[in-house]
Parts: sequence; structure tokens; C-alpha cells
Amino acid sequence: MMANENVVFVGKKNVMSYVLAVVTQFNNGNKEVVIKARGKIISRAVDVAEIVKNRFVSDAKVKDVHILTEELASEDGSMSKVSAIEITLTRP
Amino acid sequence: MMANENVVFVGKKNVMSYVLAVVTQFNNGNKEVVIKARGKIISRAVDVAEIVKNRFVSDAKVKDVHILTEELASEDGSMSKVSAIEITLTRP
Repeated sequence: MMANENVVFVGKKNVMSYVLAVVTQFNNGNKEVVIKARGKIISRAVDVAEIVKNRFVSDAKVKDVHILTEELASEDGSMSKVSAIEITLTRP
Repeated sequence: MMANENVVFVGKKNVMSYVLAVVTQFNNGNKEVVIKARGKIISRAVDVAEIVKNRFVSDAKVKDVHILTEELASEDGSMSKVSAIEITLTRP
């Protein structure tokens, strides 16, 4: 499995779009899916993980939650820092 | 140390209020501080943890990040589910 195949980046679409993406990865046979998000969208990534685990993939567990700070280039070229989260879900 | 003594609940105040609360707990000799938040404020809790660690308490590390679903009673008595996060910071 390549590193990026099983990553779902959470953005501004509604929560269920990303839930579907994660569920699809599991249904395709992936044993591990990483849910990533930055900034204010972090809470949506947590929602996605919890909804997948509690409603759709009952044997999925949270293997790891990593928080970090990323540097982003703004439009004017300056750098700004933003918090990020990486939630790893696994199933047996 | 009692279970609740070293908990900082993140709410709607600005990020630095909670950063100060966490730093104060460490300065008072606590080796472990738990930062909790619910719903959309989860991203602010991650900001608090990252700012404490990167700018104020350089030997602090993230020991654990736990995500969960909590049930809240609404004003009309109905229950609703909300995602939550608990970030445990430790220092040596």
C-alpha cells in the first residue's frame, strides 16, 4: 500500500462526503485510513472519524491521533502557521 | 493530584486565555495537563496545545490525543451527539 493511497483530506464539503470517502477506502480492502485536516476544519475531521466508527464500520478503531503545526505560504508569500490533525483508523 | 485539577476546558474565549491557563498549571508544578473541547471548538484546543508546546513550555510533549462522542441534552430535553477531544500534555 502506497503512503498516500489511504489518506482522506477533509475540506469544506459536508461531513458525509468525507465519511463516504473513508468507508469506500475500507470497502476497497484498506485496513488503515488516515483522515487529515487543517485549521478550523479539524473538528470536522473528528466528526468524520467518529461517524465512520460509530455508524458505518463498527470494527474500526482509532489507532492514532497526531496533532501538529504546519507552515503555509499565504498569497503574499509570507508564511503562516496552522494546526493540523491526522487521525488513523484501522480495522482488523 | 485529583483527576479534575489539571483539566482546561476550551470554550469561546480567545486562544491565548486557554494557553495562559495551561501554562499556569505547568508553572504550578503539574506534570500533566488535559485540554478538553467539544464540537467546532476542537480546532481551538489543538491550537492551544500546539502553542503551549512550541512557544511557552518547550519540554512539554503530547502524551495522548483521545477523540470521542459525547451526548448532550438540548434545551428541549432531546439528546444530541457531539464530537470531543482530550489532549494530554506532559513535561518531564
